[in-house]
Amino acid sequence: MIHMPESVSAAIEAFAALPGIGSRSAERLTFRLLTDQNNLAVRLSSALTEMKNNVKECDQCCFLTDENTCEICMDTRRDTTKLCIVESPLDVLALERTHEFRGRYHVLHGVISPLRKVRPEDIRLTELYAHIEQLPDLNEVILGLGGSTESEATALYIMEQLRGRFSGHVTRLARGIPSGSELDFLDAGTLGRAMTERREW
Amino acid sequence: MIHMPESVSAAIEAFAALPGIGSRSAERLTFRLLTDQNNLAVRLSSALTEMKNNVKECDQCCFLTDENTCEICMDTRRDTTKLCIVESPLDVLALERTHEFRGRYHVLHGVISPLRKVRPEDIRLTELYAHIEQLPDLNEVILGLGGSTESEATALYIMEQLRGRFSGHVTRLARGIPSGSELDFLDAGTLGRAMTERREW
Repeated sequence: MIHMPESVSAAIEAFAALPGIGSRSAERLTFRLLTDQNNLAVRLSSALTEMKNNVKECDQCCFLTDENTCEICMDTRRDTTKLCIVESPLDVLALERTHEFRGRYHVLHGVISPLRKVRPEDIRLTELYAHIEQLPDLNEVILGLGGSTESEATALYIMEQLRGRFSGHVTRLARGIPSGSELDFLDAGTLGRAMTERREW
Repeated sequence: MIHMPESVSAAIEAFAALPGIGSRSAERLTFRLLTDQNNLAVRLSSALTEMKNNVKECDQCCFLTDENTCEICMDTRRDTTKLCIVESPLDVLALERTHEFRGRYHVLHGVISPLRKVRPEDIRLTELYAHIEQLPDLNEVILGLGGSTESEATALYIMEQLRGRFSGHVTRLARGIPSGSELDFLDAGTLGRAMTERREW
């Protein structure tokens, strides 16, 4: 095997370590950056450095920010009676795209997982309880976690922990048939849940 | 839409500008880098900067190197009677993986394309003619270009240009059925060519 210049191999390796990028794709991306006319490599490189140096977690909701407090928590027009707990900053973006929620978020940065050695103290639960205390009008906590077993167990754990800390409604996202899906392609778990949680028309 | 910290948006944008990475994947990659424990963002960032600063084209074959001459051209064990012309540095890696070729390469960094305004002088043809002159033992030039119309036109153009400059054999890669493929899944062009260029068993 011929040796590439060390920086090229390092770039290929770093790309290949990212989720969903195999070694061939990593090669392609690296060579594209090498020959790119728009200085994309420099832009990407400096964005990543700056990001690593400046971006931190919001002191209230643990979403990402380069200030102390994020844009959502600073926004006085948001509904502070509702708090949606999510696993990752990506979930905030996904929910914001729906335009269906105008309350606050709280980002856990993970779920409890005995298998992967993620304990309750490894996710942002202390920060969650503090965040809830800072919201005197809060009357609904929405468990916006995913559908995996670990996510559901984390949701259950949080529900337990909220007793005594929060007396309002605790809700979770609806489970059921995804928009546009055909019944016979759905797994039995999803379809079964859609049946047991069916609603009046 | 909420605003992400500027460096995060810049990283997402830069990722999304890469081939095969959509905006959602770009978000995922960026957040993965943000929360990664192994300093992947820093490694990627510094590899890219170093790569852009140090990597250049080999003064003989135009492959990538951080010296003046690349490892392949420096390797005295390579067969200097054979030269394989390819479009991109990736093709060199792909051919090296086959272990079927031990000669020299010449990387064009593109193909002639009137549509995309790539003229003969925009690819490394002057360097090709110089490279050929530096190889006194050369007796075979292999046109290792792809199967697109532009690649084939470029191969034809080079063949014309080699007249008077090179008197040995000019060959091209075999065209035909890819290994492991089933006939009824192949396009008519590939299958037709496999038929007309059939060989004695």
